[in-house]
Amino acid sequence: MKNHQVRLAARPAGLPKRSDWQFTEEAMGEPPEGQILVKVRYISLDPAMRGWMTEAKSYIRPVAIGEVMRAGAAGTVVASRHPQFKEGDMVTGGFGVQEYALSDGKGVQKVDTRIVALPTYLGVLGLPGMTAYFGLLDIGKPEVGQTVVVSGAAGAVGSVVGQIAKIKGCRAVGIAGGADKCRLLTAELGFDAAIDYKAGDVKAALKQHCPQGIDVYFDNVGGEILDAALGRLAMHARIVICGAISQYNATEAVKGPSNYLSLLVNRASMTGMVVFDYAPRYGEAAREMAGWIAQGKLKAKEDVVGGGIDAFPEVLLKLFRGENTGKLVLEL
Amino acid sequence: MKNHQVRLAARPAGLPKRSDWQFTEEAMGEPPEGQILVKVRYISLDPAMRGWMTEAKSYIRPVAIGEVMRAGAAGTVVASRHPQFKEGDMVTGGFGVQEYALSDGKGVQKVDTRIVALPTYLGVLGLPGMTAYFGLLDIGKPEVGQTVVVSGAAGAVGSVVGQIAKIKGCRAVGIAGGADKCRLLTAELGFDAAIDYKAGDVKAALKQHCPQGIDVYFDNVGGEILDAALGRLAMHARIVICGAISQYNATEAVKGPSNYLSLLVNRASMTGMVVFDYAPRYGEAAREMAGWIAQGKLKAKEDVVGGGIDAFPEVLLKLFRGENTGKLVLEL
Repeated sequence: MKNHQVRLAARPAGLPKRSDWQFTEEAMGEPPEGQILVKVRYISLDPAMRGWMTEAKSYIRPVAIGEVMRAGAAGTVVASRHPQFKEGDMVTGGFGVQEYALSDGKGVQKVDTRIVALPTYLGVLGLPGMTAYFGLLDIGKPEVGQTVVVSGAAGAVGSVVGQIAKIKGCRAVGIAGGADKCRLLTAELGFDAAIDYKAGDVKAALKQHCPQGIDVYFDNVGGEILDAALGRLAMHARIVICGAISQYNATEAVKGPSNYLSLLVNRASMTGMVVFDYAPRYGEAAREMAGWIAQGKLKAKEDVVGGGIDAFPEVLLKLFRGENTGKLVLEL
Repeated sequence: MKNHQVRLAARPAGLPKRSDWQFTEEAMGEPPEGQILVKVRYISLDPAMRGWMTEAKSYIRPVAIGEVMRAGAAGTVVASRHPQFKEGDMVTGGFGVQEYALSDGKGVQKVDTRIVALPTYLGVLGLPGMTAYFGLLDIGKPEVGQTVVVSGAAGAVGSVVGQIAKIKGCRAVGIAGGADKCRLLTAELGFDAAIDYKAGDVKAALKQHCPQGIDVYFDNVGGEILDAALGRLAMHARIVICGAISQYNATEAVKGPSNYLSLLVNRASMTGMVVFDYAPRYGEAAREMAGWIAQGKLKAKEDVVGGGIDAFPEVLLKLFRGENTGKLVLEL
């Protein structure tokens, strides 16, 4: 049995190129005592991956050169010498960009595909959903009737942020790139308004769609859109810094938010979050979100792309080109 | 009796010039029923004044062209037709840049110069002290043993922030411009370390003096120093955005903090504050700080400059050139 893997070959400058990756093949045997062997079926593609490829100090150690690329994934246990797992179990975990993974079970979750399909455990019921849930509710602290704006709104995290905002009685405004994504937000996901940043002036659109100002701004993109949102804050607004996809491939310095003094004028705050801090509460969030899915209040959007391991470098770029809608997943 | 006044003549570009001001003379009569007449003795000079001179939306309306320049001040009641004030009372209030002010008593505080000298009511026991107290304690929330860094540390607000940090059992590190100011911080005000931003690499100095990282950063200056502090945050750090004196006279766009993603990496927050929000609690803070002064734990530094009303335009510039140490006050 052969395992095919994608390893980091070089630290990229700008957008990761195919030559930044190394493709390896290894023989797979039976798992040793206390371990499981997982056949990976879906690999999660996340903007955060770009950060893991750089050497800069961050919230998690960089992926080493030559190491299998870090990735969340979902698959099937095909052999088990671990008391808590048996052959046929469906599981998620940090299996990496490879076809088979050995695991001692740490951080591995058994999932029930009768509730939602397997890729949804990488999306709404996975880390993106947890990020949306805790970032919005614990840091954003939206109140009924307030205005929540989210950037990257058609992405894995943003699409959930807006829907939870609606569930909590807020006005939800999404910022996304392109008419199709904007249509998805308002026609299918229940957002009150969508702003196409490619079509025009985000600042003017925020003024139009947030007449009372922005109470919670959930930022996935950074750059000029963060500045536009800062320019439209309501008093005591909360900004959740979840990501900055516009800056991850920048070869110059990161663009800092020029309008940050709006925090002072509006007695507002800007707070960073990393979902891993909420691991002890993932179960609580997943139960509540599964309930919302069952009630039809929360829709899971996945963008499942085939092509197997070999397609990983190109599929990853869809994220940075804004080509995905919902959670981007590579199917093996 | 003649009243001399300084009025805003034009909205400045860059540093305010003498021609941005208009000097007027008016006859002063007796106060009408319900009012007091105050002879102003000390005028408070504050970095925030620069913001009040611009038209941009802010936390307070701009000073209008032709209006007496807004300023906190201290003086003596010389005539009263108000039941709560009598001739001879020493008072502080928003009397403006003028020699005499009529007031209906709103926002006017009677002060006791047996406790501290009159200029101190514009400094440690005035708005700068309130800003330091509430910004540090309510927003910064320092804990015993944590590291508090303050920029503009030899200024009216910064010098109090560092001293309160020490009173609360923290390590206090000040950033200021020049060896004299730095010596003041460590030799006289009890800071654990001082960093002279004019003398070298602030980033390296922060690394040296904050080996465990910065838990609370109280920012009065913005610009590159804010970025240096962002680069040295401890986990769950709190940044208090109080001001950005390095940017107030900029004729280009404000420099946003490029390192803001450190908020994410460190699960940190950056929160703006405006002291006026704490008005209902000024009394509480003033009582506690007066106690610290009496116990010798808190030193009041004022930089009292003579020259009268006519000197106002030049004395104001001392703030932006970093020439003052402690609270800058114009004596009439």
